[in-house]
Amino acid sequence: MKLENPTPIEWKFSERAEQLQSSAIREILKVTMRPEVISFAGGLPSPETFPVERMQAAFDKVLSQQGKSALQYGPTDGYAPLREYLADSLSVNGSQILPEQILMVSGSQQGLDLLGKVLVDEGSKVLVETPSYLGALQAFSVYQPKFESVDTDEHGLIPASVAAKGEGARLMYALPNFQNPTGRTLPMERRVELVETCARMGIPLVEDNPYGDLCYTGEPLPKMLNMNPAGVIYMGSFSKVLTPGIRLGYVVGPATLIRKLEQAKQAADLHTAQLTQMVVYEVIKDGFLGQHIPTIRTFYAKQCQVMLDAMSQYFPQGVEWTRPEGGMFIWVTLPRHIDSNQLLAEAIQQNVAFVPGAPFYANNPETNTLRLSFVTVSPERIHEGIKKLGTLIRSKL
Amino acid sequence: MKLENPTPIEWKFSERAEQLQSSAIREILKVTMRPEVISFAGGLPSPETFPVERMQAAFDKVLSQQGKSALQYGPTDGYAPLREYLADSLSVNGSQILPEQILMVSGSQQGLDLLGKVLVDEGSKVLVETPSYLGALQAFSVYQPKFESVDTDEHGLIPASVAAKGEGARLMYALPNFQNPTGRTLPMERRVELVETCARMGIPLVEDNPYGDLCYTGEPLPKMLNMNPAGVIYMGSFSKVLTPGIRLGYVVGPATLIRKLEQAKQAADLHTAQLTQMVVYEVIKDGFLGQHIPTIRTFYAKQCQVMLDAMSQYFPQGVEWTRPEGGMFIWVTLPRHIDSNQLLAEAIQQNVAFVPGAPFYANNPETNTLRLSFVTVSPERIHEGIKKLGTLIRSKL
Repeated sequence: MKLENPTPIEWKFSERAEQLQSSAIREILKVTMRPEVISFAGGLPSPETFPVERMQAAFDKVLSQQGKSALQYGPTDGYAPLREYLADSLSVNGSQILPEQILMVSGSQQGLDLLGKVLVDEGSKVLVETPSYLGALQAFSVYQPKFESVDTDEHGLIPASVAAKGEGARLMYALPNFQNPTGRTLPMERRVELVETCARMGIPLVEDNPYGDLCYTGEPLPKMLNMNPAGVIYMGSFSKVLTPGIRLGYVVGPATLIRKLEQAKQAADLHTAQLTQMVVYEVIKDGFLGQHIPTIRTFYAKQCQVMLDAMSQYFPQGVEWTRPEGGMFIWVTLPRHIDSNQLLAEAIQQNVAFVPGAPFYANNPETNTLRLSFVTVSPERIHEGIKKLGTLIRSKL
Repeated sequence: MKLENPTPIEWKFSERAEQLQSSAIREILKVTMRPEVISFAGGLPSPETFPVERMQAAFDKVLSQQGKSALQYGPTDGYAPLREYLADSLSVNGSQILPEQILMVSGSQQGLDLLGKVLVDEGSKVLVETPSYLGALQAFSVYQPKFESVDTDEHGLIPASVAAKGEGARLMYALPNFQNPTGRTLPMERRVELVETCARMGIPLVEDNPYGDLCYTGEPLPKMLNMNPAGVIYMGSFSKVLTPGIRLGYVVGPATLIRKLEQAKQAADLHTAQLTQMVVYEVIKDGFLGQHIPTIRTFYAKQCQVMLDAMSQYFPQGVEWTRPEGGMFIWVTLPRHIDSNQLLAEAIQQNVAFVPGAPFYANNPETNTLRLSFVTVSPERIHEGIKKLGTLIRSKL
């Protein structure tokens, strides 16, 4: 019954697949799973912040009371009560968001894939920050765009650069709060200018906001979504405020776009697990996030400060870094002659890991940059790891 | 802060998105959600078969014992113990399947999307059965192939037609067991011939098998995967043997392809929920499916027989239908002059629904066909609905 010596298939992959690469970060993570490695490479939230017992109680309740419908196929656009809750939460500053403007997705990475699928043709111009979130570059790359890197400075992207480079762009991808990888926050006046510029030029503005709630002090800056709901596509996630492993996010935008994304999602995976959506709704519907998020903020702020202090203590002159006001990442710029890829190879020898900066650039990578995450490492090990890194950098000067 | 009268965006969708359509079935399902409608239109498994309590106990156990890791980001290829379990179950008839040949996906619909993404360029030849599974046509369509419809008869696809039409095809998509929509089963000798033909011609053969375990009598026929593991891409699903709402399936194939699919999945949604995979592993690891699946078989066999009996009683001469040996669907061929789309409009007036056959054809739809599902309707209502349909058809003769 089994074929004898069949000719092995010579795989012919699609053009888009030929250029697919595994994420640099995921490859590094594999190397750094050894417990002796002090890893600043991860993009993982701290499991200390996961409300495990509350999630468990919600799974129990939903399965007891609505088990059969929770385990059945569900609607592609998502679980209606959760969409209504989100629409309500997003309706601020005089702009009303309707449930039909929301599509639930299997993690906001899926939102990026669907946006690429629906908006990007081969050769389409796509605007991204310099540098930008690696996962977004990966998701869009599949659809073979021509990336245009928008200029940035220490306050994030410069709207005038969008005006200069944006003509005919199919989308502008921005991560305004505690950006991954730089930790930068886009100031209020630039938000307004960016929204105005994109609206004037007819460029859909994607506002990706996984970290927005994780501000260490004060309140998050206003969302660009609410400045122009007709032109902004907002992406939200439960990964950083609840847990990432459940894979739940959402895309908010004008209904015309959302219906098209819904069709694309139907073809891609029919729908996101109904049970997960019902459980998350059960967990958050009475305002749980309002008590829970401040505990994450306090925890991450402390971790961040520990790393910043260690960097001041151990990093030599000539090294620069960002001082994030929220989120999970610090961005380091080394003297120009130091290649962070080579540095990583040596750091791993000494059981310290980070992510080199180059893969975050769509064009012209700056090879003297790197990203550090401080949320999953203990203060003692942050000190130890940063000290080792400092010594290593010093040896290159 | 809100923009005053911004110009609304004129959405420019990608070429692939312009041709995306909402599934005909999902549109019909919306109409038939009213409780008074007797719907044979669904493709939903019966919730009576969902092992809700067992799932609930498994969620409790996994969250109690491994909550933090279950809720954290996980590996893109999937939860290792589940992949090992599946590899072991699939290693029969002298062919060994290794865990690295398995990619866990968010329902097998996602497997179809990833296969299209990785194997299909614009204009690529893709072979499908006549008719074929609508969700597969939808998933592949996004990548703009040229579909070639392989000839079929009452025993399913005819391998000689693959030989005649297949030159240069990028894949052959087959659903050999209790096919959706026809309910047909591909006989053993045709399986061997199909596997040989595809191997000789270098065509990757996709074996989609969501219903394979739901045989009403005897044992399932051997999988084509095991006849040529180097040339067959197998797709499995937990939707019909456990529950569909959790969105869990898997793709099995040569490691070269699986690594490429894994990269595509990473860009598409990072990974499938770790918690879901751990729970399913917990539910099935001690052989639960071996006791559970027979109860589904018995239940569906009885439902199917009720519908077949009712059809014999109420359908007029000149109407033909399949007699499935498993699965969830019966395929009806009406006299050539009756258009099942028009019939549906009249049937819905009388509170009966089904799916017209045309959308299941990649080319040259036969408009006198329709699909009936018997698994979620009670025997009394099957009788009532089939009687009404019979009367309606009779009025057209």
